[in-house]
Amino acid sequence: MSTVIIPSSVPSPAEDCEQLRKAVQGWGTNEGLIISILAHRNAAQRKCIRQTYFETYSEDLLKSLEKELTSDFERAVLLWSLDPYDRLALLANDAARKWNSSNRVLIEIACARSSHELFLVRQAYHVRYKKSLEEDVAAHTEGDFRKLLVALVSSHRYEGPEVDMSLAKSEAQILNAKIKGNIYKHEELIRILTTRSKAQLNATFNHYNNEFGTAINKDLKSDPKDDFLSALRAIIRCMNCPEKYFEKVIRLAINKMGTDEGALTRVITTRAEVDMKAIKDEYQQRNSVPLDSAIVKDTTGDYEDFLLALIGHESA
Amino acid sequence: MSTVIIPSSVPSPAEDCEQLRKAVQGWGTNEGLIISILAHRNAAQRKCIRQTYFETYSEDLLKSLEKELTSDFERAVLLWSLDPYDRLALLANDAARKWNSSNRVLIEIACARSSHELFLVRQAYHVRYKKSLEEDVAAHTEGDFRKLLVALVSSHRYEGPEVDMSLAKSEAQILNAKIKGNIYKHEELIRILTTRSKAQLNATFNHYNNEFGTAINKDLKSDPKDDFLSALRAIIRCMNCPEKYFEKVIRLAINKMGTDEGALTRVITTRAEVDMKAIKDEYQQRNSVPLDSAIVKDTTGDYEDFLLALIGHESA
Repeated sequence: MSTVIIPSSVPSPAEDCEQLRKAVQGWGTNEGLIISILAHRNAAQRKCIRQTYFETYSEDLLKSLEKELTSDFERAVLLWSLDPYDRLALLANDAARKWNSSNRVLIEIACARSSHELFLVRQAYHVRYKKSLEEDVAAHTEGDFRKLLVALVSSHRYEGPEVDMSLAKSEAQILNAKIKGNIYKHEELIRILTTRSKAQLNATFNHYNNEFGTAINKDLKSDPKDDFLSALRAIIRCMNCPEKYFEKVIRLAINKMGTDEGALTRVITTRAEVDMKAIKDEYQQRNSVPLDSAIVKDTTGDYEDFLLALIGHESA
Repeated sequence: MSTVIIPSSVPSPAEDCEQLRKAVQGWGTNEGLIISILAHRNAAQRKCIRQTYFETYSEDLLKSLEKELTSDFERAVLLWSLDPYDRLALLANDAARKWNSSNRVLIEIACARSSHELFLVRQAYHVRYKKSLEEDVAAHTEGDFRKLLVALVSSHRYEGPEVDMSLAKSEAQILNAKIKGNIYKHEELIRILTTRSKAQLNATFNHYNNEFGTAINKDLKSDPKDDFLSALRAIIRCMNCPEKYFEKVIRLAINKMGTDEGALTRVITTRAEVDMKAIKDEYQQRNSVPLDSAIVKDTTGDYEDFLLALIGHESA
């Protein structure tokens, strides 16, 4: 569920544009005004504002904002102002080009979204980069990570509820044999995780737990420092319980010495209109502190105000 | 260009259905009537006929036809009556389940179609089989063929005309090094062929030819009996000049002792509304015999009449 608070009576796109134009023009920038508009409009409304702004002032709203804003606040506002799938295409491109084995962004996009949404990201990627997402992922990664990530971002998983129980049993056996044998980079393991439907995988993981007495993600923790194992766990978490996955990303970003603003901005801008309500509940549950308070403690200024508005903080 | 001849005045779907119902009911079947209708309607018209037939007689037209027709004629009419992407999904499923290393059907579907069409096939596959295409391909293939085929059917290549010439040069070098070193199953070679856009690959192959003095497909003929090499050549031909590729499939199907009706039916039903005109021209050019005459010589009865009608034979 979305945490973005939309006013009961929304000004017309033309009125919003007029206010935004005022906020970015003349001496100084009115950041509060920008937040009060953009952080309280849904994706369709923001898209409409961007179109109207361009038609009225012959300038892309993002360009106007870019000139005036700086640092983490700028990055957050720009990401937020993009169309959701275009935003994910941009994040995927960043992740592919500067790929390193601890980067989880491609996994988030491929596994914590529906098949249809992943396809919309792939289409947006074509438009933005004149290339395909899998093409860039394949060109910038290598070895076992390449096998895993290219298959993940190329998949178009079946989304129905149908489950083949005998397949779940036989594939739970395969997974267990590979994991116990420490050959978790085996192509059969990659095949199962990258092609089966979420419902089918869920049945497989349940059978794994019943049959072998441990959750598969526990068994994938044999070496906590191994990035490949950690990627496999992220895949399973993103598919099974994205809110828990993203709670952890936020928790680590906040608890880190110096805060990981990149991760914080990414999760909040990409999940605010998806499941931020559930992520907030999960955060409170896991940390005994509301996410709002943690953000207030860890960030400052316009950036803080903007994030608080996106997660539905009442006074923001 | 399509070779299907649509009459200048097409009867209403209701009238067509009435005639088809007559053709399949009572003593004997009127195959000529079936051909005169179905072989002379385009995909949208056939879809409409199938819907109207179901609404009128509470039976799927395909079931009615299945009960009355037999053998190669039955297979051809049933394939032809399907929605084009559903038909390809069915052929892909056949190919995946009974996969062997000389089967080229998955390559045809992945490479001789646009990215959008391949995606429509993947969607039709979900609906028909409650699974994904790549899931079945991955489960029924293995080793290097699996790497190649799963990547091919999962790809969503960029379709624009943009070409990166320096990339074309560097990747032509990579391809040449792998081919000359007889390591044509190398993952870099698979990556390039399965992810780059057709325009980009065309530039790469042109550079290959200029730089190394031979067409890449010639270099991929070092062992004519190697199925993997033959698959790589099929990929390149399907992307570069599908009409030549399909001309050859038809030629081999006809020249074979006993005719390969499966291949003949597949090519004619899947390409009649795409590029059969070009395939026919190519056939005449390569064999000094019109395709019509070759089909007349090699097939008989209703099956012959149906194929002739689909390839636009005038009296059919």
